[in-house]
Amino acid sequence: MAVAELCLFPLGTESPSVGKYLEPVIEVIRASGLKYRVCPMGTVVEGSVDEILGLVRACHEAILKAGARRVVISLRIDDRTDKPLTIEGKVRV
Amino acid sequence: MAVAELCLFPLGTESPSVGKYLEPVIEVIRASGLKYRVCPMGTVVEGSVDEILGLVRACHEAILKAGARRVVISLRIDDRTDKPLTIEGKVRV
Amino acid sequence: MAVAELCLFPLGTESPSVGKYLEPVIEVIRASGLKYRVCPMGTVVEGSVDEILGLVRACHEAILKAGARRVVISLRIDDRTDKPLTIEGKVRV
Amino acid sequence: MAVAELCLFPLGTESPSVGKYLEPVIEVIRASGLKYRVCPMGTVVEGSVDEILGLVRACHEAILKAGARRVVISLRIDDRTDKPLTIEGKVRV
Repeated sequence: MAVAELCLFPLGTESPSVGKYLEPVIEVIRASGLKYRVCPMGTVVEGSVDEILGLVRACHEAILKAGARRVVISLRIDDRTDKPLTIEGKVRV
Repeated sequence: MAVAELCLFPLGTESPSVGKYLEPVIEVIRASGLKYRVCPMGTVVEGSVDEILGLVRACHEAILKAGARRVVISLRIDDRTDKPLTIEGKVRV
Repeated sequence: MAVAELCLFPLGTESPSVGKYLEPVIEVIRASGLKYRVCPMGTVVEGSVDEILGLVRACHEAILKAGARRVVISLRIDDRTDKPLTIEGKVRV
Repeated sequence: MAVAELCLFPLGTESPSVGKYLEPVIEVIRASGLKYRVCPMGTVVEGSVDEILGLVRACHEAILKAGARRVVISLRIDDRTDKPLTIEGKVRV
C-alpha cells in the first residue's frame, strides 16, 4: 500500500473561495472506497499506486464537471517495498 | 494568517526509514509556538508568511544537524487577503 | 493537452547521488513518445491527463526495478479546457 | 548552493489566464540577482536557502501587489552538503 496526498486548485473561478468545486472531488474520493483523510492542505489516501492514479483521473473529471475551466492538480505519492505504509503509521513519523 | 504544509525528505540515508531525521524537525516546529498539525504526508502550520518561511529555515538547519547530507524540502503555502485562513477552517473544505 | 511536471526521489539509497535510479525513469519518459523537457527540478511532459497518469505508473515501475526501496513521486498537472496548454506556451508565462 | 523551484497560483481571478499576476513575480526574480531559469511549470533559482526563502517572501508580496486576493505558493528546495548543486548540473540528472 502507498499513501498519497492529492490537492486540486481550480483557477479562474472569480471568487477566491473554491469549495463548490472541491465538494464533488471529495465525494468522488469518498465513493472510491479507498481509505482517506481530509487534511488542511489536501486529501490523503491509502491504496496501490494504480488505485491512486485511477482516483486522480476521477477527481480531474469531477472538477471539470463542476465547472472549473483550469485546474492545477498536485499529487505526492510515498511508496515503499520493504514494509507497508498506512495513513495511521505515517502520522507517527 | 496563512496555512502551509511542509515536508522534508532526506536523501542518501542508508535506511528507507527516515524518522530519526524528522524527529528533530518536528521538535523545531513544536518549539516555534506556531499552531501546527502533524498529517500523514507533512506537517501543516498556521502563521504569517514570514513566520512560515522562518520556520522552514529552522527545519532545514535541524535536518542537516541531524546528519542529512541531502534534503528535499517541499512547501506549499495558501494565503488569502479577503478573509483569514486557519487549519480548522481548511478541513471544512 | 495538459502539461505536467514529474519528479521522483528514491529514499534510503546510501548515497545522496541518485542518478542511477533516475536514468531508467528518463528512458521510460523518452520511450513514451510524449513531448518532454528535462528541467532542473523535474521532467515536464505534455499529453492528455490519461497519458500523463499512465506515464507516472510506468516511471514508478522503472524506479522500483532500478532498485529503489522507497520512492516519493511528486506530480503537478496543469490542465485547462478553454485553450490548449503546451510546454512552449507555458515558458512564455 | 541549493536549487529550488517556485510556482505561484493566484486563485479567484476572473480569467483562467494568470500571466498578468505572474509577470511582476518574474520581474522580482530577475531583479534578485540570483541565477534563474523560467521552466514550463515554475521558475528554478540557484542560491543559499536563505536567499531562496527571501525571494519567496518578495514574490509573495509582488503577487498580492498585482491584485491577487488568494495565492498558492509551491516551493521545492534541493540542498546537499557533500557537493554543490547548480541549475546546469541538475539537468544532467
